[in-house]
Amino acid sequence: MSETILEKTEGRVSYHDSVEEMLKRIREDGMSNVFDRWMHQEKIRCKFCLQGLSCQLCSHGPCRINDKGQPEKGVCGIGPDAMAMRTLLLHNIMGAGTYSHHAYEAYRTLRATGEGKTPFTIKDANKLKWMCEQLKINTNQDINKMAVDLANLLEEQLHVGTDKPNIMVETFAPRKRKKVWRDINIYPAGVNHEEQNSVASCLTNVDGDYASLALKALRLGIATIYNAQIGLEMVQDILFGTPKPHEVNVDLGIMDPGYVNIAFNGHQPWAGVATIQKAKSKQVQDKAKAAGAKGLRIVGSIETGQELLQRFEVDDVFVGLMGNWLAIEPFLATGTVDVMAMEENCSPPAIDMYAEKYQITLVSVSTIIGIPGLQHKIPYNPEEADEMADKLIDLAIENFKKRTGNIKPMVPKITQKAVAGFSTEAVLEALGNKLDPLVDVIAAGKIKGVVALANCSSLRNGPQDWNTVNLTKELIKRDILVVAGGCGNHALEVAGLCNLEAADMAGKGLQEICSALKIPPVLSFGTCTDTGRISMLVTALADHLDVDVPDLPIAVTAPEWMEQKATIDGVFAVAYGAYTHLSPTPFITGAPNLVKLLTQDVEELTGGKVALGDEPVQAAKDIEEHILSKRKALGLT
Amino acid sequence: MSETILEKTEGRVSYHDSVEEMLKRIREDGMSNVFDRWMHQEKIRCKFCLQGLSCQLCSHGPCRINDKGQPEKGVCGIGPDAMAMRTLLLHNIMGAGTYSHHAYEAYRTLRATGEGKTPFTIKDANKLKWMCEQLKINTNQDINKMAVDLANLLEEQLHVGTDKPNIMVETFAPRKRKKVWRDINIYPAGVNHEEQNSVASCLTNVDGDYASLALKALRLGIATIYNAQIGLEMVQDILFGTPKPHEVNVDLGIMDPGYVNIAFNGHQPWAGVATIQKAKSKQVQDKAKAAGAKGLRIVGSIETGQELLQRFEVDDVFVGLMGNWLAIEPFLATGTVDVMAMEENCSPPAIDMYAEKYQITLVSVSTIIGIPGLQHKIPYNPEEADEMADKLIDLAIENFKKRTGNIKPMVPKITQKAVAGFSTEAVLEALGNKLDPLVDVIAAGKIKGVVALANCSSLRNGPQDWNTVNLTKELIKRDILVVAGGCGNHALEVAGLCNLEAADMAGKGLQEICSALKIPPVLSFGTCTDTGRISMLVTALADHLDVDVPDLPIAVTAPEWMEQKATIDGVFAVAYGAYTHLSPTPFITGAPNLVKLLTQDVEELTGGKVALGDEPVQAAKDIEEHILSKRKALGLT
Repeated sequence: MSETILEKTEGRVSYHDSVEEMLKRIREDGMSNVFDRWMHQEKIRCKFCLQGLSCQLCSHGPCRINDKGQPEKGVCGIGPDAMAMRTLLLHNIMGAGTYSHHAYEAYRTLRATGEGKTPFTIKDANKLKWMCEQLKINTNQDINKMAVDLANLLEEQLHVGTDKPNIMVETFAPRKRKKVWRDINIYPAGVNHEEQNSVASCLTNVDGDYASLALKALRLGIATIYNAQIGLEMVQDILFGTPKPHEVNVDLGIMDPGYVNIAFNGHQPWAGVATIQKAKSKQVQDKAKAAGAKGLRIVGSIETGQELLQRFEVDDVFVGLMGNWLAIEPFLATGTVDVMAMEENCSPPAIDMYAEKYQITLVSVSTIIGIPGLQHKIPYNPEEADEMADKLIDLAIENFKKRTGNIKPMVPKITQKAVAGFSTEAVLEALGNKLDPLVDVIAAGKIKGVVALANCSSLRNGPQDWNTVNLTKELIKRDILVVAGGCGNHALEVAGLCNLEAADMAGKGLQEICSALKIPPVLSFGTCTDTGRISMLVTALADHLDVDVPDLPIAVTAPEWMEQKATIDGVFAVAYGAYTHLSPTPFITGAPNLVKLLTQDVEELTGGKVALGDEPVQAAKDIEEHILSKRKALGLT
Repeated sequence: MSETILEKTEGRVSYHDSVEEMLKRIREDGMSNVFDRWMHQEKIRCKFCLQGLSCQLCSHGPCRINDKGQPEKGVCGIGPDAMAMRTLLLHNIMGAGTYSHHAYEAYRTLRATGEGKTPFTIKDANKLKWMCEQLKINTNQDINKMAVDLANLLEEQLHVGTDKPNIMVETFAPRKRKKVWRDINIYPAGVNHEEQNSVASCLTNVDGDYASLALKALRLGIATIYNAQIGLEMVQDILFGTPKPHEVNVDLGIMDPGYVNIAFNGHQPWAGVATIQKAKSKQVQDKAKAAGAKGLRIVGSIETGQELLQRFEVDDVFVGLMGNWLAIEPFLATGTVDVMAMEENCSPPAIDMYAEKYQITLVSVSTIIGIPGLQHKIPYNPEEADEMADKLIDLAIENFKKRTGNIKPMVPKITQKAVAGFSTEAVLEALGNKLDPLVDVIAAGKIKGVVALANCSSLRNGPQDWNTVNLTKELIKRDILVVAGGCGNHALEVAGLCNLEAADMAGKGLQEICSALKIPPVLSFGTCTDTGRISMLVTALADHLDVDVPDLPIAVTAPEWMEQKATIDGVFAVAYGAYTHLSPTPFITGAPNLVKLLTQDVEELTGGKVALGDEPVQAAKDIEEHILSKRKALGLT
């Protein structure tokens, strides 16, 4: 954290007052926490690791090298550029692999639902038909059979090889992009195939060429978005409804300790939806009341919360979203959570202590989750979603009895309103089902351009969400519409940038549009997994105008990326042809040729590039400049 | 390298004189080389990395922790045991992924061959029928159709999920093991499914529990062996013949600079076999002669060489094996290589310098390979194997013309004989097609037990192959039969332990058996990929005796493991129920609970465990002690 930021932020750890308030309790209780652990590590960083010049892969290592003098190569002979890029590709694979895991769960859930084996139904039959039409699946059949056919095709496409077409890319990629990708040999096979090819390339003594490794990352990025993200988000729309804008509640103030509270944490909505459905029954509410509670509530935690938020109205059963991943420890410390059900990142490993201290029952609802000492493991299986909900409800009621006797709750009195639930369909609906009005307001300069913000939350550049919120404020002030996904989106929701009043912070042109369309200046598009969904809007725009993505006055920013899913989203954005602002700087600074490739040379290949910069005002200026140059090239002033 | 070893080895870098001789030239030529790079790095090791207590996964890192005092957790909250195990699992995934890549290439080659689209044929129809019978594929059809059916089944099984049976495990695992694996929940789905599940588990804030991560590694290990290794090796037998013992030539002395020499390096035999077939034609030999050469020869480099060695007689076209991976730079420095065709590890990244200095044309024959500045990329496609061979031959002849004018060759006059080509079938044949004679000689104590050595080559414990060769000498001296695979196997071939004369180094009992059966005391079973093949022999023995693997007087050793494929082989061995000696010690020493789990507690789960120890005599004693204890439990003296 630079001194300037420390001064400006007066020692805060978070943009959000609720988190600051809870941290006092956490510290008073002597609990280890992410903010203090960050401070510890900040003092002892390894410079080799920071520069990407450290490798622990083989028994000839660990090696550390530098780009000036000896040793300039690892024992195997790998140089700085390839070492840094290989590590980055490995992180990309982890991100792609996690999205693919989510997709696997989505596709088998759709199939099992079509077969009548889950508590779910086909909620958006129109979307199912639309997907089937796009993918040339027979729509002249029962919708459940259609669902099974779609699930089978999507699953098969996950691991389609190079000898057959990648139908998802062929169907959903921008028309003009496909030739570009073929020309530079990054048109991908299925995402599992590309993961396989990439992970084998990262082995010691396999691919020692940074340029080759970088192209593999770009190819993997494309496969991840089309085979995993777009497929799984469309499936979730089919099962749970396509998002539509509606007002929701966020921040820690949504918690009421008098209820049995079950929080769903991670990225996958299965257990959460099944439990919401159950929790709406009088029977469950009565059971909770019999245990002395006011009732039983479902709370959305981070991205799973956002998935629910996008599709469900907030009411007395589903009460909203607590915030993003850095708010998890503060959330647990409120002493109001009975069950924390987890299925994907971010489920931080040290929350076992919080569970003990604040009487929370931790439950993994996925094979991938592990927390030290975890007692309750209910791996997800679509056919058992109903029993899973029952078990979670029972565990929560049991926990409530113990919690209320022992733990003094503490809930910050802070709740924020946000409009969640944007999607390509919702935007089109707001525009009267055509893109021309959007094109017109961009052409007229009311909106200078659109920035997609897809992001985590990181302490690297200052307090939690400081960079995300400030960059976004700078962008909307400049009449740039922001479309947000991921933990960064939750940041903006909690910070009050996703409600109608936030238009006051926008420039005059954007303000006018917000007022006319009754939309906030920041459109909440969902989670990091909705990077694909956001791209669908941009693809529609490019195809509508018959231009390629790099011609559009758009950009992507990840001003607080933290984990490996963010890295593959970023890589996709570059392959997609977007100016892609990343902060903090990835661990590549010891690799000068790689830095040049990613920030300059790649533009000649894909039209996209990485832009670095950790200062939000400057980053916003750079993005605006890029957007203005694209406007100029299109003949817009 | 400890001082004791330095003293004993008098400053040598290798067990092999040929490598020592070439290193002089390499140093005189001022070339960077793996031995000197090792010395550089040895002085600047990071202790956190060595202990497994360093993490670079997310933008909150790099973190370094220790198990004594602060900070004992990374920023996310992960502790030392989970941090080290997560890194290890990530390495395991890379190994599994690379074997799976090999399997993918094998299965599509079999299918294309069945469809008549490759230069290959079904060479071992009996094995094809046997595999089809085992896997319940209709054998009452044309062998080519059978091949296609088998390829399809194997490919499908690579990514079979948890909802269907893993037919490869069900068919080929030891009878009594399957229940053990089910009881502790490590019975796997297909290897690609397990890779996916594991890689998603390794993401930041997903699985922070070392025990959970370790179980995932065990599960992945089992899937790797059955879905990838055993499948692909059986397919290679079907296509190119099941290995049978025959005498071959090894070490650098096999090179003749007067020939056009094409070396095949990596692990996959496709390009090599296609080129050997072509090179046997008068037309190709005449073409080489027209360029001024004595002819054109194929040289086996490391594991690809071993794959060829196991199945092809050495003659005037295929001349043998040069050695293992640490001999690659010395091999290239002989100035006799025209084309180095590479498709998997180990293709070290710094050989671009050698190509320039000693006039070698480097060619990647796989999508996964990358070398800085690589000009020639011919990605493998079964249907284009024939043209690939043509291109390699043309490139080699062109290179020969340039090489012979410019480079002074230097070839150590050292060639060694070895008997290669053992397999379960070959062993059974030597025993009169039944296992009883082997059981009898073990029961009688002529052979105390069997050790499988599957291994790389590493400088960590001393000169190249020092540990491997010395440990093996100690084992055979103790009447323990060694069955070898991988770069360690090449070490033993080059060191003269795989020929009939080596029986002189064995104990009396083993000597007697070697003499009776006309076998060496070390049976060359192939590559690291043949870990699965070796397990088939052990499985046959366990099932024959109706005991479980941990009951047998056997052990596994990897005395010089180097890369990530070795780590997944080691993990499999533990899941399989074997005492598994590993050296060097993996990067886990900062994780006390993990060390205890892997070296002690896991024995209660699988019957196997990791045994550490870098000193070959002590390691041999420990292995012997283990074998004697198992003999005792079986009532043998």
